[in-house]
Amino acid sequence: MTTYKIYAGGDFIETNNSFNVENPYNNEIIAKTFLAGKEEMEIAIEKGLCAEKVMKNLPSYKKYEILMQISDALKKQKNRLATILSQEAAKPMKYALGEIDRAAQTFIIAAEESKRIPKEYVSLDWTEAGAGREGFIKHFPLGLIAGIAPFNFPLNLAVHKIAPAIAAGNPIILKPSRSTPLSTLELAKIIDKTDLPKGALSILPTDRETGNMFVADHRFKLLSFTGSPSVGWRMKNNAGKKKVLLELGGNAGMYIAENTDIKKAVNRSLIGAFAYSGQVCIHAQRIYVHQNIFDTFIAKFIEATSNLKFGTPTNPKTDISAMIDEQNAIRVENWVNEARNQGAKILYGGKRNGTNFEPTILTNTKSEMKVCAMEIFGPVVNIEKVNSISEAVEQINNSQYGLQAGVFTNNIDDMKYSFENLEVGGVIINDIPTFRVDNMPYGGVKNSGFGREGVKYSIQEMTEPKLMVL
Amino acid sequence: MTTYKIYAGGDFIETNNSFNVENPYNNEIIAKTFLAGKEEMEIAIEKGLCAEKVMKNLPSYKKYEILMQISDALKKQKNRLATILSQEAAKPMKYALGEIDRAAQTFIIAAEESKRIPKEYVSLDWTEAGAGREGFIKHFPLGLIAGIAPFNFPLNLAVHKIAPAIAAGNPIILKPSRSTPLSTLELAKIIDKTDLPKGALSILPTDRETGNMFVADHRFKLLSFTGSPSVGWRMKNNAGKKKVLLELGGNAGMYIAENTDIKKAVNRSLIGAFAYSGQVCIHAQRIYVHQNIFDTFIAKFIEATSNLKFGTPTNPKTDISAMIDEQNAIRVENWVNEARNQGAKILYGGKRNGTNFEPTILTNTKSEMKVCAMEIFGPVVNIEKVNSISEAVEQINNSQYGLQAGVFTNNIDDMKYSFENLEVGGVIINDIPTFRVDNMPYGGVKNSGFGREGVKYSIQEMTEPKLMVL
Amino acid sequence: MTTYKIYAGGDFIETNNSFNVENPYNNEIIAKTFLAGKEEMEIAIEKGLCAEKVMKNLPSYKKYEILMQISDALKKQKNRLATILSQEAAKPMKYALGEIDRAAQTFIIAAEESKRIPKEYVSLDWTEAGAGREGFIKHFPLGLIAGIAPFNFPLNLAVHKIAPAIAAGNPIILKPSRSTPLSTLELAKIIDKTDLPKGALSILPTDRETGNMFVADHRFKLLSFTGSPSVGWRMKNNAGKKKVLLELGGNAGMYIAENTDIKKAVNRSLIGAFAYSGQVCIHAQRIYVHQNIFDTFIAKFIEATSNLKFGTPTNPKTDISAMIDEQNAIRVENWVNEARNQGAKILYGGKRNGTNFEPTILTNTKSEMKVCAMEIFGPVVNIEKVNSISEAVEQINNSQYGLQAGVFTNNIDDMKYSFENLEVGGVIINDIPTFRVDNMPYGGVKNSGFGREGVKYSIQEMTEPKLMVL
Amino acid sequence: MTTYKIYAGGDFIETNNSFNVENPYNNEIIAKTFLAGKEEMEIAIEKGLCAEKVMKNLPSYKKYEILMQISDALKKQKNRLATILSQEAAKPMKYALGEIDRAAQTFIIAAEESKRIPKEYVSLDWTEAGAGREGFIKHFPLGLIAGIAPFNFPLNLAVHKIAPAIAAGNPIILKPSRSTPLSTLELAKIIDKTDLPKGALSILPTDRETGNMFVADHRFKLLSFTGSPSVGWRMKNNAGKKKVLLELGGNAGMYIAENTDIKKAVNRSLIGAFAYSGQVCIHAQRIYVHQNIFDTFIAKFIEATSNLKFGTPTNPKTDISAMIDEQNAIRVENWVNEARNQGAKILYGGKRNGTNFEPTILTNTKSEMKVCAMEIFGPVVNIEKVNSISEAVEQINNSQYGLQAGVFTNNIDDMKYSFENLEVGGVIINDIPTFRVDNMPYGGVKNSGFGREGVKYSIQEMTEPKLMVL
Repeated sequence: MTTYKIYAGGDFIETNNSFNVENPYNNEIIAKTFLAGKEEMEIAIEKGLCAEKVMKNLPSYKKYEILMQISDALKKQKNRLATILSQEAAKPMKYALGEIDRAAQTFIIAAEESKRIPKEYVSLDWTEAGAGREGFIKHFPLGLIAGIAPFNFPLNLAVHKIAPAIAAGNPIILKPSRSTPLSTLELAKIIDKTDLPKGALSILPTDRETGNMFVADHRFKLLSFTGSPSVGWRMKNNAGKKKVLLELGGNAGMYIAENTDIKKAVNRSLIGAFAYSGQVCIHAQRIYVHQNIFDTFIAKFIEATSNLKFGTPTNPKTDISAMIDEQNAIRVENWVNEARNQGAKILYGGKRNGTNFEPTILTNTKSEMKVCAMEIFGPVVNIEKVNSISEAVEQINNSQYGLQAGVFTNNIDDMKYSFENLEVGGVIINDIPTFRVDNMPYGGVKNSGFGREGVKYSIQEMTEPKLMVL
Repeated sequence: MTTYKIYAGGDFIETNNSFNVENPYNNEIIAKTFLAGKEEMEIAIEKGLCAEKVMKNLPSYKKYEILMQISDALKKQKNRLATILSQEAAKPMKYALGEIDRAAQTFIIAAEESKRIPKEYVSLDWTEAGAGREGFIKHFPLGLIAGIAPFNFPLNLAVHKIAPAIAAGNPIILKPSRSTPLSTLELAKIIDKTDLPKGALSILPTDRETGNMFVADHRFKLLSFTGSPSVGWRMKNNAGKKKVLLELGGNAGMYIAENTDIKKAVNRSLIGAFAYSGQVCIHAQRIYVHQNIFDTFIAKFIEATSNLKFGTPTNPKTDISAMIDEQNAIRVENWVNEARNQGAKILYGGKRNGTNFEPTILTNTKSEMKVCAMEIFGPVVNIEKVNSISEAVEQINNSQYGLQAGVFTNNIDDMKYSFENLEVGGVIINDIPTFRVDNMPYGGVKNSGFGREGVKYSIQEMTEPKLMVL
Repeated sequence: MTTYKIYAGGDFIETNNSFNVENPYNNEIIAKTFLAGKEEMEIAIEKGLCAEKVMKNLPSYKKYEILMQISDALKKQKNRLATILSQEAAKPMKYALGEIDRAAQTFIIAAEESKRIPKEYVSLDWTEAGAGREGFIKHFPLGLIAGIAPFNFPLNLAVHKIAPAIAAGNPIILKPSRSTPLSTLELAKIIDKTDLPKGALSILPTDRETGNMFVADHRFKLLSFTGSPSVGWRMKNNAGKKKVLLELGGNAGMYIAENTDIKKAVNRSLIGAFAYSGQVCIHAQRIYVHQNIFDTFIAKFIEATSNLKFGTPTNPKTDISAMIDEQNAIRVENWVNEARNQGAKILYGGKRNGTNFEPTILTNTKSEMKVCAMEIFGPVVNIEKVNSISEAVEQINNSQYGLQAGVFTNNIDDMKYSFENLEVGGVIINDIPTFRVDNMPYGGVKNSGFGREGVKYSIQEMTEPKLMVL
Repeated sequence: MTTYKIYAGGDFIETNNSFNVENPYNNEIIAKTFLAGKEEMEIAIEKGLCAEKVMKNLPSYKKYEILMQISDALKKQKNRLATILSQEAAKPMKYALGEIDRAAQTFIIAAEESKRIPKEYVSLDWTEAGAGREGFIKHFPLGLIAGIAPFNFPLNLAVHKIAPAIAAGNPIILKPSRSTPLSTLELAKIIDKTDLPKGALSILPTDRETGNMFVADHRFKLLSFTGSPSVGWRMKNNAGKKKVLLELGGNAGMYIAENTDIKKAVNRSLIGAFAYSGQVCIHAQRIYVHQNIFDTFIAKFIEATSNLKFGTPTNPKTDISAMIDEQNAIRVENWVNEARNQGAKILYGGKRNGTNFEPTILTNTKSEMKVCAMEIFGPVVNIEKVNSISEAVEQINNSQYGLQAGVFTNNIDDMKYSFENLEVGGVIINDIPTFRVDNMPYGGVKNSGFGREGVKYSIQEMTEPKLMVL
């Protein structure tokens, strides 16, 4: 069995607190690694603080080189890394491969943006008091960053914290999910071989108590957290003086108008609903279909769902595999059963077997049911009938969340109405809410988050403007 | 009879070459004014050159004050100025009033943009050769500007040269059309009372030979010309080392898709076709209507046209009045007759009476006919049938010109297709090609122009970037 | 005695909790006004929420009109308003007049920026996943804003919350300082006469318990607070899910290099040290002078201080008047005495008489003394000797605060070193840290604040980006 | 002997008009290649026009890939390519290697900028006429580009036309100098192996008559010319309707203030004066030194010049080698002799031997002498005494040219004065006018040019904005 040392302040170390990482699909142990305690955390923080100055002074061509080296190494090891990621997360291989590609791309974007940290040069002579004066605004790195990444995109969502931190000139300590630490520890090995100053990166799985330091320790200047809403919002109020960036979840909705290419809508919705068993922040949980095409859509969607291939994650043909753990599978099962008991109709699936949960299609749901109102983070989708764009928008907005929404339509008025009125961070026209490319601003409103990611936007969050008046 | 002195380098002067300005509607003499000769032009140029330094050094709060004072004065004298403009140009009062409003707005925009002349602050450490280096880019005024304005928007199109010139810190000499010099000479009176440094503005109607100095004299750093294509392009090749900005005309086309609100399309098309007798650069000369609604559209359009009220320009109820001169009315008459002889069908109008030409609707035209292929600059519109957005775009593009185009549609694909494929400077979705607001970038491709106006964009043309590497 | 009603959700009302506003210089009662309780606050919040939609949908030309109307009215009533402000705050008339000018200017900037709310249009085809896709980012108003303004610039610092809120399309409830509510209540009268939708603005002095709703009530989407650091940071952790913008204070430092125009440095430092009795967030509290000119500077500075004219605030010749209340004057006295007892030397002043505290110059201070380490918010300045720019920067950075710093130098290396190394929000070259114009980004690092103000920057904070993928 | 086919519309071809390329240092024939005639030119144009549509529609990720492939290939073949370049241009190897690095870097910049073609999203509701309207501005490729590159940076100055053309989505036909066509023909081989659509690039040395088509043929939409002023400006007036971008030469000046690090100034000035025998557009031709350090500077500069190593270009230790041809060496000799006869003093060098001209230092020159007033394009520098920044700026501005200027100073006032008053495209503080990195805007004012290069800026020139109003 492989042992992964953890990466503290530039050194790969072991601690006296080891644990096993399992493949959720078959519960086989993949590797052993370690939890950092306060002592290791302290080392990482101290070395991180030491690295602040050298990171701040790195010229952009050095940052570019380092970030491009990382990207190249990810591409070269794509298959090996995807296999590890697939195993630790039970993520079907085709999605795991895509995630390595995206992580490599995220580093490229960061490499480029490191040369384009925003600067402003402005006139200040708008009144006599400023006559002859000009302003120069430069964005300086904040300092040590705390990053907490979730299990569902264990590599790329960590990279969305690490890459912009480096690009901005900040050291960072990243806490991966305890379920899926291996892909980021592999990344640590890659980064360790580059010219990144030692101490500028640590990758530390931690126990809960130590994990709290990411939130409470005042030496961190920003906490970037991706995870569940309840945990995230609590952090905001315990964060002291540091900035907080929260990428939380949602119960993303979408609308399919009458005038749509139904085949495309079905194919994309299938991805939105069931990719990685719905364990995706922008999982398409609620689909509102125009009444005139509702029956057709349902029929085609059920048929497409029935063709999904369940199996071992590392098989390249697998469409859907196990959920991350049994506890979550049971939760999903309970919510679905509760919904059925309250009147929802199961059009497909609905059954659990260990960590496996069938792709499940519900209808006749009500907005108060947990399957609608809460983030299900499982392979469950609710499909309901609406009669207009305005009803669809009302339904989608009828939620405590607001991350992204999808609108399939060929109508300009629908498009404008959606953009103006959907209470979300991103409106995807003619695609699923699950659409994300790594240079776009990404983040939610309402309970779905606080701030925006997407390299350039993360860099803005991770820097502080300083004005010089001359 | 009123006498208007011309404005040379800060002084109101008379020359020995006077001429009368007439109302084209009734040939009444409105006022007497003067043509500048080479001597007056020389004075204006020399004083303009002298003003370069003081203009360059004006702080933005001074430029803001001056430009806002002008705007306020225009608003205060709105009715008086509109009456003068209406008379000199035979422009119906409602459009003349609108032009004063727009000129006031153009000065406001310039006032604001004078505080926002673009500046850039960039990293230069993308390679080791630039380590520790940053770049500062500031846009400096070019120097003396030559502006030539047409008769059709005698005030606002002059203002689109004067206002950005001042905002950018440049002196300018403006040549109004000989037909319509009065509104700009009124503007000169207003500006003369502000703190604009003397010499920074001249308003000089000229004879043809003197007018050539605007093109040929090397002391001008930029020539901004609005007028006819043939004149404009000849200027480009005689301009020596100066920059040239050409706002020429076109034969603007538009498309009305099947799914459109026909009533709105008719009402707007009426404006596009006949406002100010079509003497507008973005006059809607060619309307392509989807075959399924063609007959309906034609019927409604003819009816609406028949309700247009012809009359004296200063009457607030007048919709349409005389053309600028008989020579142009005859030209339009000839083109229409030629088209009819070649097979076009006159659905409405077609007759001339002195300087008056009836609002005229043609169909069955061919793309080679002058009424289609050339800029008609008269109250004539061709309406033809098409069966798709792609045919419409092909027809609209089948032209030597490319200023703006209108597309009435509620379809996202139509919108994207139009934007990608129409060979024009501006695509107006759900409105006529005649749409213009004064802060938008405005200008054409193909034979319709060279460069862009629209205050902010004019300012970019009227400044030169200078880099400081530090 | 004048009675000022308070402004709740579009109505001027009285409550059963009145209080008197006094002139701190002579304790004369100027006016009576009211404290809002929870009931009035609830009305203001409900009407504010109702106004969210109409505010969001205001076109920019309406916002521009409203904001310019307010600016014009402030200019027209300048003397009257300055007198009221001068009385309630004991602010010398010349500074009060300047504040009215600045408030008018802040509204102009907001009017202009309301037309320029940032929008982005970006390519998303950086990978195949985004082929054919583009992104449109528009900034939407956040919703109801909570603003809390301090006593020291009772009008303009309130305006820095109100004006950008309106420009961004947000309703706002503003709590003025209980000491100085009159100038903002005058502003309410002005705004009430414009077309601003009723409910979009409330001006409510409150008791402490009601005041807590500004922080805790979840219906506010952003809290913008200007005030003391201890209060501000506590708010951040009680703010729930809302955004927080903190403009706190500091103990601003400055450096005077050897090669400087001493006369200019003395004259400006005098303003930095003693304007409005140092009750300014960017009051120049610590001046570091190069050793070679230290004695000269001290001599000239003492002489200049001795010429300051103390007196009644409304006298146009008064340079310095009373502090805001006796409690603060006593605090300053205590700190100065404590410093003297610990070895500091009083070069000038040091004595208190009621609310009046003499302009006071200290030297031989130590960085731990309260007069150095804490925000004194009184007419006290410490002047110390240093031998280099690096020592000066080290001293200025030796503080828990970091708002602005001033550097008098004619040396490029000093300038670059300062900009790179001073831990502040703004570095003012060749002027005092007290320099502020209203379009510049303004705000501090370390304990001095969180986020940036300055109209354009406030608008960014007060809006939420929404992405449309097309 | 190697034969290089030329690259016409995607094919490597021979013509019946071959010529030899020689090493100017020893007149050895390096290779044989061909001149394109009208027939080959016609093929290249037709294939270029055919490629317009496919180029326009390339997604940015494809353009990025292509441009990065080119950059990688240049890096891999660095030594081989540098040797060829060194031979054809008699460019010392160390500079030839640097040029390959820069060309690779220019392609990287273009790859990145291809994803960042400027787009704007603006509000149009500044008046009621635009209520509910927004504007979208996208920059579309212009179409076929004509590029003409000079001999002195035969690779990188060609790349500054090719790389932005591709990034912008334009096909391009590039005419290299007849003296130095080999490095660009090597580049053609590299590019031919990428996925760049065939026809999108041609590299064609031509005879003079065919070369005229680059200027006169209306199928080109932009002419980008780097070369001599007299040729360039003539082109502008023969270019018809196409855009013209001129990067011409100059007689760059610099100033060395009293407070400067003389050693650094001498070392950098040596590069500015003599690198590649001064055959550089931004060659430091005129050095103005403060009188108080003049003698010291002269002494050190002569000494440093005497240490320059003359020799064969491919020797890595060579500092200076032959000029491009004897004709130019004779011209330089004549100018120097003429200057001496008119009173100039030769402090070092001055002699010619075939194509070799000694590094030459003059003083006591007058501004009318050819060595001062005209672009010498040879290893000659004039060093003169001044007593102030203002005199230095006056001297530097006393020229028909204005490309870049260098100012060695540590004084903020000098820096500001230079930036405000030097009539040039770029002011380099504390370095020579010869400073250029490939992402900076580059180009001259006065007779030195028209427009700006520097990838991002070239892309702006090579695209046309199109507005969509929605």
